[in-house]
Amino acid sequence: MEKINNLLFSAKYCGIKKEAEKGRRFDVGLAVFKIPTRVSAVFTKNKIKAAPVVISKNNSRNLINAIIVNSGNANACNGEYGILDAVRVTEAVSKEIGVEKDNIFVCSTGVIGERLKAEFIESIIPELVESADESGFNDFAESIMTTDTFTKTASADILLDGKKYGIIGTSKGSGMIMPNMATMLAFIFTDIPIERRLADIMFKECVDVSFNSVTVDGDTSTNDTAAFFYPDAPQALKWPSIKQCDANYDIVKKALLYVCMELAKMIAVDGEGATKLIKITVENAYTEEGAKKTALIVANSPLFKTMITGEDLNLGRIMAAIGRSPVRMRPDKIDVYIGDRIVVENSVISGELSETEERALLSPVEIDLKIDLNCGKSSRTVLTCNLTKEYIDINASYRS
Amino acid sequence: MEKINNLLFSAKYCGIKKEAEKGRRFDVGLAVFKIPTRVSAVFTKNKIKAAPVVISKNNSRNLINAIIVNSGNANACNGEYGILDAVRVTEAVSKEIGVEKDNIFVCSTGVIGERLKAEFIESIIPELVESADESGFNDFAESIMTTDTFTKTASADILLDGKKYGIIGTSKGSGMIMPNMATMLAFIFTDIPIERRLADIMFKECVDVSFNSVTVDGDTSTNDTAAFFYPDAPQALKWPSIKQCDANYDIVKKALLYVCMELAKMIAVDGEGATKLIKITVENAYTEEGAKKTALIVANSPLFKTMITGEDLNLGRIMAAIGRSPVRMRPDKIDVYIGDRIVVENSVISGELSETEERALLSPVEIDLKIDLNCGKSSRTVLTCNLTKEYIDINASYRS
Repeated sequence: MEKINNLLFSAKYCGIKKEAEKGRRFDVGLAVFKIPTRVSAVFTKNKIKAAPVVISKNNSRNLINAIIVNSGNANACNGEYGILDAVRVTEAVSKEIGVEKDNIFVCSTGVIGERLKAEFIESIIPELVESADESGFNDFAESIMTTDTFTKTASADILLDGKKYGIIGTSKGSGMIMPNMATMLAFIFTDIPIERRLADIMFKECVDVSFNSVTVDGDTSTNDTAAFFYPDAPQALKWPSIKQCDANYDIVKKALLYVCMELAKMIAVDGEGATKLIKITVENAYTEEGAKKTALIVANSPLFKTMITGEDLNLGRIMAAIGRSPVRMRPDKIDVYIGDRIVVENSVISGELSETEERALLSPVEIDLKIDLNCGKSSRTVLTCNLTKEYIDINASYRS
Repeated sequence: MEKINNLLFSAKYCGIKKEAEKGRRFDVGLAVFKIPTRVSAVFTKNKIKAAPVVISKNNSRNLINAIIVNSGNANACNGEYGILDAVRVTEAVSKEIGVEKDNIFVCSTGVIGERLKAEFIESIIPELVESADESGFNDFAESIMTTDTFTKTASADILLDGKKYGIIGTSKGSGMIMPNMATMLAFIFTDIPIERRLADIMFKECVDVSFNSVTVDGDTSTNDTAAFFYPDAPQALKWPSIKQCDANYDIVKKALLYVCMELAKMIAVDGEGATKLIKITVENAYTEEGAKKTALIVANSPLFKTMITGEDLNLGRIMAAIGRSPVRMRPDKIDVYIGDRIVVENSVISGELSETEERALLSPVEIDLKIDLNCGKSSRTVLTCNLTKEYIDINASYRS
């Protein structure tokens, strides 16, 4: 399921990315909603916000007719020119499809601090609009990639009041990823009409445990945006009713969460230079927030992440990371599991493992780390990846 | 100046480090105070504290007659055995020199979660005590090294009321370094008698702007200890008087700060795999704490640290890091300088630099980054280093 009725996509190369950059075919993507759509969106909490974030945050109060997104340039830290360029792009799209510029959702991702070549995007817009169709989703997904090594898409089918609906989504982002809101670009679409108030709640809950629970390197970007697009409920009375706390709400939320989780997981898998996916669960903390905070400190520890790369178990690094979490815990009651194997009990590192056993614990490409704080009842899981020399390679020369 | 009267040092190899580990000659060091000494010490704020931290924190209330320190094993996460082993070591030293075990300061550094071979240390103590002399300081400094690539010592001479005194110090630590207190091992010695109350204040102030302003990788260890040893003032009335806010206090503090700063700087220079020293100053923040917090967020950003490695200026990474600092600022008023060159003005990245100029800015081995928040009057400086592939190499296989 990778299409939704009344939702058209296209992608083109307009010249923002360097010609042969990593073999990318596209650097600009368009989504057109044949029926004007509502959006629930979360934006970066970084105080330095890219121009398209400012524009889209404002426009997300309105009905949305199209999304225009470019990769290769973040349009951030460009001052007033940044805003002017972002507006220019929304204007060009709005004119082409015959709506107002405030009905356009705009995103950018790529290098910060270089002026956006808005005229390149402008000149390709007629072609983008012309070629948009219901089967263009994968091209759209490809157009938003930067250092990503694969396109990230996920979908779910839903049966609601006997009628079939769908949710499809795509995300990008493999560096400068850290939950301080949405942490990358993610676009999720459905043809289920939802009340905005409910969609806002539902999407925030899903983002919190999916995109906001992924970290690659602890860096949060100026452009992070996750947006969920859905037809406006009051527009057609025959559409299914969804109320908070009813079965329909739960069905939709479950499907939305599935799509968000899949996309978030792909971001961690595709972490720059990463070779392993790491799932860190902190259990029995005093609060959920504390559980998440502790898991993130471990997830962002370079010593922990390089240890996973070396497959050389050094439990002290995990314990040291747990210990510097600023949350209440009982420092002598901590248990740590890798997979099903207990490796730290009551904060004492087991001396029983042979070197072969230790290495075996870290050899899988998916590592499951469980930290039991044994003091409260709250749990949270975060996803991350290992830190490799390739991360350095990629980031020591991202622009050149 | 690398000796102080009545202060003896020695170092030996006892078998804790693997025989040929990185060519280290020593894995255990001893300092003996012929005159019992006071200590002002700061310990890790990590909730998971190594056994020697627990013991030394307790013993630091007493007069100290000796320091025993080993490298190669941190004696952390060993539960009750850790405490027993640390006590056993202090007992062996105290017996050999004829004092109580509570007058011994004990430290360990190295791998976490392996039981300390206390018996190895025990059996070498007679030799250590026998060979301790006033010229053994450099050997002692060498004995505390782990992944450090050079011994770190610094000293200052002081003239106080017409009499010559000295301060000498040594530190270790090139990974798992992050200011959350003292961040490594540091031992600083003087023959100036100081009242404990004053020494505590003076040392804490010095640690805050030196050791606590250095970060290599954001990881805080279980063993961090910085300790300042000085003769107890009331013991000899002819010693110089030092009062808070008098000239003598300022002279001593200035010298102590110099030694702490030199040792801290060496830790950053010797960051695991590092090739560049980075000085980050945040100016005109609303608070000193906020200035430091912001500087540390930049200093710990892997994207920023790899950019320095690649000498490929990407100011967006700096701006994105500043923007995720959780302190109040004016997001459109930020100026950034590299050396004397302004590169971001009013949060707009200068497009004027040629690629050659950009590269030239990052080519020095010492990079001076200044961030002017233009909103308050407080400033702070932190030191860090770049992130290289060698960091990964070192840490992917630290134990094997």
